[in-house]
Amino acid sequence: DAQEVLELMRHDPETAGGIMATGFVAIREQMTVKETLEYLQVYGEEAESLSYLYVLDEDGILKGVIALREIVVSPFDEHIGPMINTNVISVRADMDQEEVSRIFAKYGFNSIPVVDENDKMLGIVTADDVFYVVEEETTEDMEKMAALAHSEKDYLDTGVFGLAKQRIFWLLFLMISATFTGIIIQGYQKELASVVILAAFIPMLMDTGGNAGTQVSTLIIRGMALGEIKLKDYFKVLYKELRVSLIVGIVLAAVNFLRVWIFHHDPPLAFTVSAALLFTVILSKVVGCTLPMIAQKLKIDPALMASPIITTIVDALSLSVYLYLAKTIYINA
Amino acid sequence: DAQEVLELMRHDPETAGGIMATGFVAIREQMTVKETLEYLQVYGEEAESLSYLYVLDEDGILKGVIALREIVVSPFDEHIGPMINTNVISVRADMDQEEVSRIFAKYGFNSIPVVDENDKMLGIVTADDVFYVVEEETTEDMEKMAALAHSEKDYLDTGVFGLAKQRIFWLLFLMISATFTGIIIQGYQKELASVVILAAFIPMLMDTGGNAGTQVSTLIIRGMALGEIKLKDYFKVLYKELRVSLIVGIVLAAVNFLRVWIFHHDPPLAFTVSAALLFTVILSKVVGCTLPMIAQKLKIDPALMASPIITTIVDALSLSVYLYLAKTIYINA
Repeated sequence: DAQEVLELMRHDPETAGGIMATGFVAIREQMTVKETLEYLQVYGEEAESLSYLYVLDEDGILKGVIALREIVVSPFDEHIGPMINTNVISVRADMDQEEVSRIFAKYGFNSIPVVDENDKMLGIVTADDVFYVVEEETTEDMEKMAALAHSEKDYLDTGVFGLAKQRIFWLLFLMISATFTGIIIQGYQKELASVVILAAFIPMLMDTGGNAGTQVSTLIIRGMALGEIKLKDYFKVLYKELRVSLIVGIVLAAVNFLRVWIFHHDPPLAFTVSAALLFTVILSKVVGCTLPMIAQKLKIDPALMASPIITTIVDALSLSVYLYLAKTIYINA
Repeated sequence: DAQEVLELMRHDPETAGGIMATGFVAIREQMTVKETLEYLQVYGEEAESLSYLYVLDEDGILKGVIALREIVVSPFDEHIGPMINTNVISVRADMDQEEVSRIFAKYGFNSIPVVDENDKMLGIVTADDVFYVVEEETTEDMEKMAALAHSEKDYLDTGVFGLAKQRIFWLLFLMISATFTGIIIQGYQKELASVVILAAFIPMLMDTGGNAGTQVSTLIIRGMALGEIKLKDYFKVLYKELRVSLIVGIVLAAVNFLRVWIFHHDPPLAFTVSAALLFTVILSKVVGCTLPMIAQKLKIDPALMASPIITTIVDALSLSVYLYLAKTIYINA
């Protein structure tokens, strides 16, 4: 009705208040099971969910909750007082819907009451609403991680121009960013002209850096979205990544050393490429775990700090190191 | 109890039968509301969920369902017969849990009955179980899309060697695959030695191809996971991507043409790089939509055909075209 619409309009649509339903059953603690059921026979129809009945005082302050299933398994003449759970988990109307979905995931409720700053009950959020929110938020994260602008519509329902628009900004931005890597290569034109084989390892270094960075940024972004990784874990994460990247980098560098040695019969070349590879792996893991957490700290969505941006940054840094190593220890040595 | 464990052991853990609970309330259609409530007072305690009561015949065949909320809002002396919904949505015990989660998402139920091939009721799956399944499956998809092996444990609970193991196989595989791109570049050593500036555009082409491919593969993989895109839509998707990539490719190529022209004062070079860029964008969109759908067709998880593999393939093809164009229309012209 009109009052419900007004109530919902007061709240940001991406908060608990914005997704809540205002139809719920409020009861008083003096009732018996039979009285409660008779009350439901009169007022229950209107409620969004009857899974939980809410005990409010005269001012509408939330005092407790009873699961409907506790009512229906109890004898008719029992008083509901002792069944009331006064330790209610509720959410504030201004809580972000993603945070609300984490509370559902944690407790596994069917619905959660929404209250204002004075604990006055305003409505309920049901698992349904949140199920939808989780799917939506995850899709949004995936879009950001793939350098796509957000689209409300399904792929098949989006027109060709809509799809193009969703993609073009980030592609242009990243294309122009990749120019820096080109400028770095230009700075080593003399070296590349004299030892053209150096160019043959550029794709391998770029791809490995991109892949290694994507692996860790995906783990961190997903971990933060699920609430498993928090900002305060940063140094733990960084120390972990340094050790992981050392192991992974040494294995990759060793395999690469053998490969270049066997196919090119040139141990100094093999050493140069492998040293650059080890550096690339370590760098990409450090950048890949750091950027999403900095974004979170700055209240930017960490999902933006995913594969595309990390790849662009790691490319520029790792090619700089590769060409510098090639110049100083391979060509000039 | 032991019988419940035996029942669950008969089912693949990733199916409806594997995640169901076997405690549910079965009632008969002759009951009144009051008799139903009295029945719940005796047998309701054991059930996993009381949101729905299931009407079974003498052989345990599922005949209908009534929401508990319909019972509790109805007068005590009413017969439940007319309230029974005989159009029950149920799932077969061998249905994959991902499919089950799609049915929850579609209908928004709190629980769904699980039946065998004869419609005999075996148990129920609740929204809780599925909420967890959806998060799990999405995390697995993201891991695959980021070239990570699956890990059951949270990031912070996984040791350094566990994390290294999760990453090393794909990085090695992709590193060795990237060698092919290196071999292609080696084949054009003469051209690169004579016009070293050509190497400066390799990172931009590789990154743009990777990003453009990731955009579409992410949309397709996510769309298929949510059931929005089906295999039969392939030609519709392909036709769409051809048109989108033409628009996106022409815009990027035009911007790039201006950029190279302004900074290098060399229109033929600008033309060569931009033509290769247009080809790269179209190719990456075609490969990016085709590979995940082929994987689906072959019953391989489409999430494996994401960014890393697509980038590796697109890199090799687009650099071949770039260097071939550079040789034939730029150097030899």
